[in-house]
Amino acid sequence: MPQYKAPLRDINFVLKNVLNCNEHYTTLSKTRREEVSEDLVDAIISEGAKFAENVLSPLNQVGDQEGCTWSPEGVKTPTGFKEAYQQFYEGGWPSMTADAKFGGQGLPNSLGLVMTEMISSSNWSWGMYTGLSQSAARLLENYAAGDLQETYLPKMSDGTWGGTMCLTEPHCGSDLGILRTKAEANADGSYNITGTKIFISGGEHDLMENIVHLVLARIEGAPMGTKGISLFLVPKFLPDANGEVGERNGVACGSIEHKMGIHGNATCVMNFDSAKGFLVGEENRGLNAMFHMMNSARLGTAMQGLAAGELAFQGALTYARERLQMRSLTGPKNPDGPADPLIVHPDVRRMLLTQKAFAEGSRAFIYWLAQLLDTSYFSDDEEAAKEAGELAELLTPIAKAFITETGLESANHGVQVYGGHGFIAEWGMEQIVRDLRISTLYEGTTGIQALDLLGRKVMGTGGASLARYTKLIHKFCKSQEDRPEMAGFIGKLAELNKEWGEITGKLGEKAMANADEVGAASVDYLMYSGYVSLAFMWAKMAVLALDAGEDDGFMKAKLQTAKFYFDRLLPRTEAHKLAMLSGADSTMAMDAEAFAF
Amino acid sequence: MPQYKAPLRDINFVLKNVLNCNEHYTTLSKTRREEVSEDLVDAIISEGAKFAENVLSPLNQVGDQEGCTWSPEGVKTPTGFKEAYQQFYEGGWPSMTADAKFGGQGLPNSLGLVMTEMISSSNWSWGMYTGLSQSAARLLENYAAGDLQETYLPKMSDGTWGGTMCLTEPHCGSDLGILRTKAEANADGSYNITGTKIFISGGEHDLMENIVHLVLARIEGAPMGTKGISLFLVPKFLPDANGEVGERNGVACGSIEHKMGIHGNATCVMNFDSAKGFLVGEENRGLNAMFHMMNSARLGTAMQGLAAGELAFQGALTYARERLQMRSLTGPKNPDGPADPLIVHPDVRRMLLTQKAFAEGSRAFIYWLAQLLDTSYFSDDEEAAKEAGELAELLTPIAKAFITETGLESANHGVQVYGGHGFIAEWGMEQIVRDLRISTLYEGTTGIQALDLLGRKVMGTGGASLARYTKLIHKFCKSQEDRPEMAGFIGKLAELNKEWGEITGKLGEKAMANADEVGAASVDYLMYSGYVSLAFMWAKMAVLALDAGEDDGFMKAKLQTAKFYFDRLLPRTEAHKLAMLSGADSTMAMDAEAFAF
Repeated sequence: MPQYKAPLRDINFVLKNVLNCNEHYTTLSKTRREEVSEDLVDAIISEGAKFAENVLSPLNQVGDQEGCTWSPEGVKTPTGFKEAYQQFYEGGWPSMTADAKFGGQGLPNSLGLVMTEMISSSNWSWGMYTGLSQSAARLLENYAAGDLQETYLPKMSDGTWGGTMCLTEPHCGSDLGILRTKAEANADGSYNITGTKIFISGGEHDLMENIVHLVLARIEGAPMGTKGISLFLVPKFLPDANGEVGERNGVACGSIEHKMGIHGNATCVMNFDSAKGFLVGEENRGLNAMFHMMNSARLGTAMQGLAAGELAFQGALTYARERLQMRSLTGPKNPDGPADPLIVHPDVRRMLLTQKAFAEGSRAFIYWLAQLLDTSYFSDDEEAAKEAGELAELLTPIAKAFITETGLESANHGVQVYGGHGFIAEWGMEQIVRDLRISTLYEGTTGIQALDLLGRKVMGTGGASLARYTKLIHKFCKSQEDRPEMAGFIGKLAELNKEWGEITGKLGEKAMANADEVGAASVDYLMYSGYVSLAFMWAKMAVLALDAGEDDGFMKAKLQTAKFYFDRLLPRTEAHKLAMLSGADSTMAMDAEAFAF
Repeated sequence: MPQYKAPLRDINFVLKNVLNCNEHYTTLSKTRREEVSEDLVDAIISEGAKFAENVLSPLNQVGDQEGCTWSPEGVKTPTGFKEAYQQFYEGGWPSMTADAKFGGQGLPNSLGLVMTEMISSSNWSWGMYTGLSQSAARLLENYAAGDLQETYLPKMSDGTWGGTMCLTEPHCGSDLGILRTKAEANADGSYNITGTKIFISGGEHDLMENIVHLVLARIEGAPMGTKGISLFLVPKFLPDANGEVGERNGVACGSIEHKMGIHGNATCVMNFDSAKGFLVGEENRGLNAMFHMMNSARLGTAMQGLAAGELAFQGALTYARERLQMRSLTGPKNPDGPADPLIVHPDVRRMLLTQKAFAEGSRAFIYWLAQLLDTSYFSDDEEAAKEAGELAELLTPIAKAFITETGLESANHGVQVYGGHGFIAEWGMEQIVRDLRISTLYEGTTGIQALDLLGRKVMGTGGASLARYTKLIHKFCKSQEDRPEMAGFIGKLAELNKEWGEITGKLGEKAMANADEVGAASVDYLMYSGYVSLAFMWAKMAVLALDAGEDDGFMKAKLQTAKFYFDRLLPRTEAHKLAMLSGADSTMAMDAEAFAF
């Protein structure tokens, strides 16, 4: 298994140089904290890196090999997971971004996300337990009534208790409108929740003393479809009079799934049998509240793509530098050895640079998106908050789907660089592919993200949302017009940025005649959008690299990676464009019966 | 796990309509069989299908879950594997393509390959035991001395004994020139073989009574590099005076690998400790002989890509027709149900049609390649044999790498269509991805195939080899000029066919100045070549579909799939073209130290 090493130089570069985080933090006047000092940021990143490298990374392969163990009493996590959580808890990490009102440190989510990245690269399965718990707490901070908040948030904020999101049922995943779990009102204002939920990550485990499930269910008599779904808080143990763990509630884990990867994280079938639940937010508006958590989970899943891609890159780079195999096509580079290191071979470099370009470009993109979300939640400037929120709405499906899809490509390159050894469990490269494979499926498949992007976000706003984004890119391109060293980047970016609007217009016209045009074009559209978005990031980074000059090796490599991205990866927009503009006919023509004979 | 159903209609279509197999068989005058009747072909295909569907397919998931078990006594294959082999053996299947001189049925390899496809889709791990054994026998038929043939081939031809290929060592995979296994000559003409080989598929198992290893080793005093490598036959048990299993030889399986997939096939570390071996072919010409087996293994691996893609398609199609989720964008298609089947959704169709287009296009391509190999080995027409052989040399790396890479895409689409369920072991879709992941690695990685294609086959023949192929495509395009219904296909195919030569010319020029240009462009070049090759196949099939008319549902679907391929998949050539023509600079510029800070 590759030993993870936090890419601190790049994290700091993105946070401080690309995104100017110190200034950003000062704009979050609504945040629940006076100041986020530079020293604090540095301390968090360096301490977090140590925890990820020294505590979590060594448990990553253990988690895969042991997996979780189910018994009627509960789920046992792999060796070391509980101890690592104890250390994490004692270090105060779970409370980083929690509201100070409930004992949190009130730090910006965008800073919390840096820790999420390091956790995610070093041990994604472990990280899901705490990540989802923190997302559940954020949802309750925003939507739960005061008494629920007072009962649950202090314990959830500091990580004593965890949380889950319970959406999927055996017969419905993407289509939540047909869910069946039911809620019967009790006289005391609580509800009895009955039904089966599947694919519940961390639905049961031994890391925390209580687990607070956030459950979508239908109140008896509620309308059919998505407008009859409410959200309930259903704790594993009902709190006693002192707010401590009390009576066991009617919810239990029936079994755990055997899966391709993320073996260290328990994926649970949860049976709710008249479990006592409490309404969160308004009746029949449950999806609305849950979207808050889903959006955060989508950002987290995008992070999985970046984190796994980074780990695969680190593993592949180490091997490519050490493994001696064949001579360079241009003559021996290691003449005293029996062969040259893999890294001399152009195609190995192509794979490594692809991984590097995706990881670093995605880091800039996700961190930027996290800043936009900070602004939308915590800026006092209402106009800025609204704009940032709308832009974040547009970028979220792109980040989720594009970064997981390209992350999978990177993970597969990681295996490929190892040759046959990449297929062997011991080296740990194949685990990265298996763990990451879920990322294009959960929290809305790539297809669902693509429909959300093109259908809801782009066409649903009559193109306004996209226009805001392309205007931003246009402005950036304009600002670089007088810089000849940037011409190569800017020329291409500006061209694509313009073309993006034109493609959107054409698809919009077609969609007026046939709604299936949206679905047929959507995934290509999303991937196109992702490539342009990363080109925007890489062009911004190229500016900073040029400013810094070639003496700084890191900056020189940035510029080279930007060049590689524009030369070798960005041309894929062309294929996506041609495919999506070919229309829906060839996708829709075949009768369902005629697919096989 | 998807229950495999042999796609008999398509297999017959490719074999009989596209490739006119009955006429082809009559040209194989050198074959060791009088006649291959249509009835025989039909009987083989339908009986083979039954065996694959009823015997092998049910063992596919068992093999994955149980895996193989190592002990000092040997390797135990999963439950049912041995019994299935016994049935296969009794059915006379192993001897299909074996030389009649040694008890074989002398059938053309291209016909044997149809059985290989059905075995491969239903249970690849099981199929490797017999597939590699048969390849080993074919090598011995061509290269071994008469006495070795007489001793080993009768038992190997009928499948009583198996065979392996032993190339890789811990420090060398792609780079065989540095291998260390040594051969010391004995007075009796035999050799003592000593060394460690890794990644030996079926190096040890319990299906057959003896295993004949074909081992690359260096005779003491031989030159360094690939020109000092010889090939040896090293049996697990030395035959006794009656040709039956005798004394145990000095070769043993030290351990088996824990791998991402193909758990049912034992991947062995083989320790040779003064094992008695017999030279096959000439001294120091071992790689030459081994290439015979490697080429056959490359074709077999291409088949793995097709076979897994087909299985993933079948699984995804079944689910897409049954699973109800969301409404069609153009209004309910299953108004009485709670939701519409997945197959109404454009993006699900896009994935299914991608799988279908790759599987059917690859089938035509591989079967054609197999016919060319038949001709090269067994035609009395020397000119035809030479031409076919040279074309097959060109097509082999394309088939191996392109069909495994696109097969992996198909396998991943299979998972994706299932949503979260795709990640769950029970459904069997994730196993397809895991099993197939090895295919771009072994028998030469995609990068190695790409270098072979662009460096050796294309540039190495000064473009002559490619020119022969593009001329063939050109001729086909010309033949369709007067058919307006074909214009859409032919226009694009002719354009790409021309462009292919132009790109090759440009790369050749660049390569004169810098050899790294070949390596940097190679994988994009290979993928480009693959897309054009499949376009050629689809255009040919479109002609037949147009001839048949729309009344035949199968043919109508063919035409629709061809259209889909040209609309949605072929545009990827554009991205590959732009990437490879961007030059090697952005790939080669970065210092090895600068990839990470």
